[in-house]
Amino acid sequence: MKMRTGLAALLSACAIGAVSTAWAATPPPMDSKALEAKFDAQIDPAEMGGWLKLLAAEPNHVGSVHDKTNAEWIAAQLKSWGWESKIETFDVLYPTPISVNLELVGGPGAPFKATLQEPPIPGDPATNTKDALPAYVAFQGDGDVTAPLVYVNYGMPEDYLALERMGISVKGKIAITRYGGGWRGLKPLLAQMHGAVGAIIYSDPKDDGYATDDVYPKGAARPPHGFQRGSVADMPIYPGDPLTPGVGSTEDAKRLDRKDAVTILKIPCLPISYADAQVLLASLDGPVAPVNFRGSLPITYHIGGSAAGGQVHLAVKSDWSLKTLYDVVGTLKGTEAPNDWIVRGNHHDGWVMGASDPLSGQVALLAEAKAFGVLMKGGWKPKRTIVYTSWDGEEPMLLGSTEWAETHGAELKAKGVVYINSDGNGRGFFRAEGSHDFQHFVNQVAADVKDPETGVSVGERARARLQVVAAEPGASEQAKAAGKAVSDPSKDIPLGPLGSGSDYSAFLQHLGLPSIDFGYGGEGESGGVYHSLYDDYEHHSRFVDPGFAYDAALARTVGRAVMRLADTDLPVQRYGDFADTVSGYLDEVKKLADSRRDEARTQAKLLAGKAYGLAADPTHPHADPAPLAQSPTLDFAALDGAVGKLKASSRAFDAALAAKGQGLAKAQRAKLNAVIKPLDQTLLRPEGLPGRPWYMNVVYAPGRFTGYGAKTLPGVREAIEERRFDDAQKYVGITAQALTDYAANLDKATAIVNGG
Amino acid sequence: MKMRTGLAALLSACAIGAVSTAWAATPPPMDSKALEAKFDAQIDPAEMGGWLKLLAAEPNHVGSVHDKTNAEWIAAQLKSWGWESKIETFDVLYPTPISVNLELVGGPGAPFKATLQEPPIPGDPATNTKDALPAYVAFQGDGDVTAPLVYVNYGMPEDYLALERMGISVKGKIAITRYGGGWRGLKPLLAQMHGAVGAIIYSDPKDDGYATDDVYPKGAARPPHGFQRGSVADMPIYPGDPLTPGVGSTEDAKRLDRKDAVTILKIPCLPISYADAQVLLASLDGPVAPVNFRGSLPITYHIGGSAAGGQVHLAVKSDWSLKTLYDVVGTLKGTEAPNDWIVRGNHHDGWVMGASDPLSGQVALLAEAKAFGVLMKGGWKPKRTIVYTSWDGEEPMLLGSTEWAETHGAELKAKGVVYINSDGNGRGFFRAEGSHDFQHFVNQVAADVKDPETGVSVGERARARLQVVAAEPGASEQAKAAGKAVSDPSKDIPLGPLGSGSDYSAFLQHLGLPSIDFGYGGEGESGGVYHSLYDDYEHHSRFVDPGFAYDAALARTVGRAVMRLADTDLPVQRYGDFADTVSGYLDEVKKLADSRRDEARTQAKLLAGKAYGLAADPTHPHADPAPLAQSPTLDFAALDGAVGKLKASSRAFDAALAAKGQGLAKAQRAKLNAVIKPLDQTLLRPEGLPGRPWYMNVVYAPGRFTGYGAKTLPGVREAIEERRFDDAQKYVGITAQALTDYAANLDKATAIVNGG
Repeated sequence: MKMRTGLAALLSACAIGAVSTAWAATPPPMDSKALEAKFDAQIDPAEMGGWLKLLAAEPNHVGSVHDKTNAEWIAAQLKSWGWESKIETFDVLYPTPISVNLELVGGPGAPFKATLQEPPIPGDPATNTKDALPAYVAFQGDGDVTAPLVYVNYGMPEDYLALERMGISVKGKIAITRYGGGWRGLKPLLAQMHGAVGAIIYSDPKDDGYATDDVYPKGAARPPHGFQRGSVADMPIYPGDPLTPGVGSTEDAKRLDRKDAVTILKIPCLPISYADAQVLLASLDGPVAPVNFRGSLPITYHIGGSAAGGQVHLAVKSDWSLKTLYDVVGTLKGTEAPNDWIVRGNHHDGWVMGASDPLSGQVALLAEAKAFGVLMKGGWKPKRTIVYTSWDGEEPMLLGSTEWAETHGAELKAKGVVYINSDGNGRGFFRAEGSHDFQHFVNQVAADVKDPETGVSVGERARARLQVVAAEPGASEQAKAAGKAVSDPSKDIPLGPLGSGSDYSAFLQHLGLPSIDFGYGGEGESGGVYHSLYDDYEHHSRFVDPGFAYDAALARTVGRAVMRLADTDLPVQRYGDFADTVSGYLDEVKKLADSRRDEARTQAKLLAGKAYGLAADPTHPHADPAPLAQSPTLDFAALDGAVGKLKASSRAFDAALAAKGQGLAKAQRAKLNAVIKPLDQTLLRPEGLPGRPWYMNVVYAPGRFTGYGAKTLPGVREAIEERRFDDAQKYVGITAQALTDYAANLDKATAIVNGG
Repeated sequence: MKMRTGLAALLSACAIGAVSTAWAATPPPMDSKALEAKFDAQIDPAEMGGWLKLLAAEPNHVGSVHDKTNAEWIAAQLKSWGWESKIETFDVLYPTPISVNLELVGGPGAPFKATLQEPPIPGDPATNTKDALPAYVAFQGDGDVTAPLVYVNYGMPEDYLALERMGISVKGKIAITRYGGGWRGLKPLLAQMHGAVGAIIYSDPKDDGYATDDVYPKGAARPPHGFQRGSVADMPIYPGDPLTPGVGSTEDAKRLDRKDAVTILKIPCLPISYADAQVLLASLDGPVAPVNFRGSLPITYHIGGSAAGGQVHLAVKSDWSLKTLYDVVGTLKGTEAPNDWIVRGNHHDGWVMGASDPLSGQVALLAEAKAFGVLMKGGWKPKRTIVYTSWDGEEPMLLGSTEWAETHGAELKAKGVVYINSDGNGRGFFRAEGSHDFQHFVNQVAADVKDPETGVSVGERARARLQVVAAEPGASEQAKAAGKAVSDPSKDIPLGPLGSGSDYSAFLQHLGLPSIDFGYGGEGESGGVYHSLYDDYEHHSRFVDPGFAYDAALARTVGRAVMRLADTDLPVQRYGDFADTVSGYLDEVKKLADSRRDEARTQAKLLAGKAYGLAADPTHPHADPAPLAQSPTLDFAALDGAVGKLKASSRAFDAALAAKGQGLAKAQRAKLNAVIKPLDQTLLRPEGLPGRPWYMNVVYAPGRFTGYGAKTLPGVREAIEERRFDDAQKYVGITAQALTDYAANLDKATAIVNGG
């Protein structure tokens, strides 16, 4: 679901402050070399390519015939490889378009009717399908509006601040935003919050089109009439079925009235192509757009919003009936600890054919499952239970994973060890994000997977990349910090934190199950066809992962991780890494508080001196910024204390386990497991995050105003960002308590290791 | 000559490290309020507009009829206002185009013939002229070549490093570069150094066209067929007539053979419009251009350079005869110190009509001159001699000012107090760069000139702007430092250093005469018509300075500065500001040395670990970077000592002058003046800078590879940048000696003030 491109993907694995101590050179914690070699030998890229062709043959959106066919085929394959497998269904709200319409009805260039369909590509017969959804975003609000058009750049909070300074309001208007700069769903939501009556999202060729590469079919980039579908539900409030927050959408579930479902947008919204957007944008008058608003269309970008500029008619009507999801769940029962579950998932629904997103990850999951089948035939059996899940309805709003996780929440809290996810995949560099107690484990896995292109380990290649990018002229401060963090090869590559945008969210942020998301990318670009008709087998095999080498590498990576987790006798976690990372996050949050205070002081001084007026061009509309609330000094003592305790407790546990772990008797190991398995659930607080109680994890969350992007220590960090200083102080305490509880449980575990 | 746009102009006045102590609240150093009010009252924007219309009525390039007519008219005006005035002529090499030709002869889009002429603009009759020079850059090397085209971005050193990493060579090819990123003349020069046989420079709409504003005539920006003329002589070696380095191009001057004139390019070069460039760039194949190479044309930018991509035929033939320059020199003889000269200049030649560049500054100069005439009729006479100069031939290579300065070098060294320059001007913010002993003086002048738009002083407005820009979200580190430097209103706004790009160069960098360059800009954008046919009266009066309010403000600013300098009894300089600024430069240079050392070490480590290969996409051409020379540890002790001495001596002088200056007898003042007047000449060292002995100032120079951009402590700084570490160490000593001599002279001055 989430689009990742190039360097950003790699760097996301390198949050500042996540520095770990030396351990990387030690061998994997289990003697499994031969088994893993046998596993690797089963991974057949050609066979995976065949599966991909089959699964991506037709549109796979929720409710489509082919999506259900795929679920049935996946379930059958699992069964044929020796897995218990079943399909679990859920009935969810999922609107499908009945009619969509967008016209320029006034201003230069009018009348003009937007295309809203993606034309087939010569030489790529699969794009001739008639079953693709038209231009459409899920969970927008139906409506029929005509209003002046106003260009709001990426449509993010800082863009509205800039517009305010220019004296521009979107109230009563239709906002046109470009993709990028933040999560799609925030764009129409923020437009709505600012009073817009409709929203349009287009892909500017600067970010996603001819400026980035030759367009498909010559190259991988988005062609002029391609557009990006997607979900615009208010995911940062809660994902899953808007009608059943917190509970599974089972047949008998209690459902909200649609009008009460807060995650559904209230205004109509459509995504469009840059060919169509150019006509709309060229119709705008008003001020010339500031530098950071300008894309790569051959026009002068204006803000518009006036009666003389472009006037737009936007109408969307949807079928709001419930649709059925088909989640596939396969199980290999553990021999020693059947109630310890290693859960691994990847979704199977796509916006159209979805070859790269998500089926490239789905065929890796299938290759792993088949390989485990072969190993079982050879006599291997996992000690813990392995649960393989193929989710439906991820694209509209993580529907399949969320409803399943909510339905089986109690069981997952009792049995879940870890959730491992993948999604769309491509050629390039290894990346992983996840729970930091697994940082060292992830590095060990990456050290043992060979990169298809260079022959070194995928970990070594990722490390080289980070260092080279940091050494490039003009490298950002973030890139330099990331390069520095990996310059000592005896230290692990820092893991990035998880926000949202794929199926781990409910597990990590609602149930407290530690999670890891794996993938490859950054070379074969899939961004150009993301969520479009053109994300098909032909495009994936020509541009994104020729020869399916990295889809196979993903299978070898995740399969290895699953196998090690299923067979380990002792915890693979290293809690010192988690403590160090959280300590780094606390440093960031304190710096943020200081800079927010400085900003407010500086702004007050500038306002008092009328500096904004003096600095403005009086011939352009301009206004002083709204005065910022002055910041109180926050008291971080509770968090300082909790992080100190966490560091001490985690070091004590890591040391004890390293010293005495191998000597633990089976009963002691079971006692230890009973403490460790639910440990990350102590990061959940029952009140959840401010305004969004579904998100209960006080260390990891998607940002309220970043969407996919992670916010760590979110209760504190976001409150400071948004100048809700009372919330900030309150969540200092709440977060400190969670970390203190976590440390106390670690102390219990240490006592067990030490013979308690 | 030099183009400044928006914020960059303002920030150039704010080099880091140039922090001064509090003095700003003190009154101007002479009792002149009434006189200055009378001066201001003479400045008539409407009259200035009339002059501008007259002067910009026809093309004014060197050798044109109208350029000579203007010189004669200016001389006559000065005379009519009571000045002694004369025209001094020089015979300089100045090539004019006989024929220019550029065609795409192979590859997609061929055949195509570039326009190379700027079409007239409907509604702007002045653009119907037939006398404009065609697409042309002065001092390129004639030639007729056909070769593959290769796109080299801005054509700066870092671009060639990037191309090298991509495995791309320009050898035997024609390089197409875009304007921006560095001085024009370096683009074909660096192409030539890398083996190209021809060069093309175009204005990309991202930097200079529809992406920046609506194009002329709807807005101020460059229209599709507009192009930027200019000089491509190797100015950083020496400016002025290529045949007479270091001496005036008088009738009997000894001239080099043209083939021996190293500042003339050896390959043909033409500037073109973006309408033409789009066809050429679209013809390229090869790798997709990296992100920072991409402009705003609606194409995928490729690097090209192959046999299958665009092939270009480029031919230029010039008339290389000598042409005559007409410098106007007007004098008001000083009553008390006729041999102390305050020299003020602005050029009168343009690339075409040159309304904004340079005539907007020229009409300010004229308004000042007329106002002085009125003051004289009222009985005022300057104590020192005022010399007003209107230069010819600035555009081709600072010809008029350089040849005049070289011709009168000995007299200027004996009599010159300061050189004050202006050039093109526009609506917006005050800016000044110059010799830092005048930093406080410049701030005092800016505190007493009222901003036409806001009514506050232009200094206060500039300060507000710097602070607001620094407070904007996403402000650069440089902007933040600049904002911080001016946040205390009791401290002066730091002055930026002078590089090159206008007529101060010979005075400051060859003769050691302290110099200041004044101007306004950043709101009314002149960039879009820079050096084109469209820089005319209509464009200037509609977009750049409606009502000529800022051209008038320039006259009030420079006239005030000239008057104060002409009438002061005591030095206005504050040497502590110079010392503090140089100390800041030394800190920068030391940091640079450290970072160069770190870079080389990091690169060696990455090369040894084969990291560049691992980080590269193996399906794209890539190569390891060339190994950097490891840096020795430089010994900065000599400079540390010299700067320490300079600080102590300057503080002692400033304190002595403040305490005892008012009590000095006339004879003592004369003794003091005899030490102070030539003081900045101690910054000249006879050996000059490495490889460019014409530039003798070891504190201020244009960069060898930045062109207009200043390099301070250039002998040391550039040597470190280019890893010429022996030169760096040598120039630590040479620069230290200059500063030590400077301090010793200051000590002499202090002794005089203290009664010696």
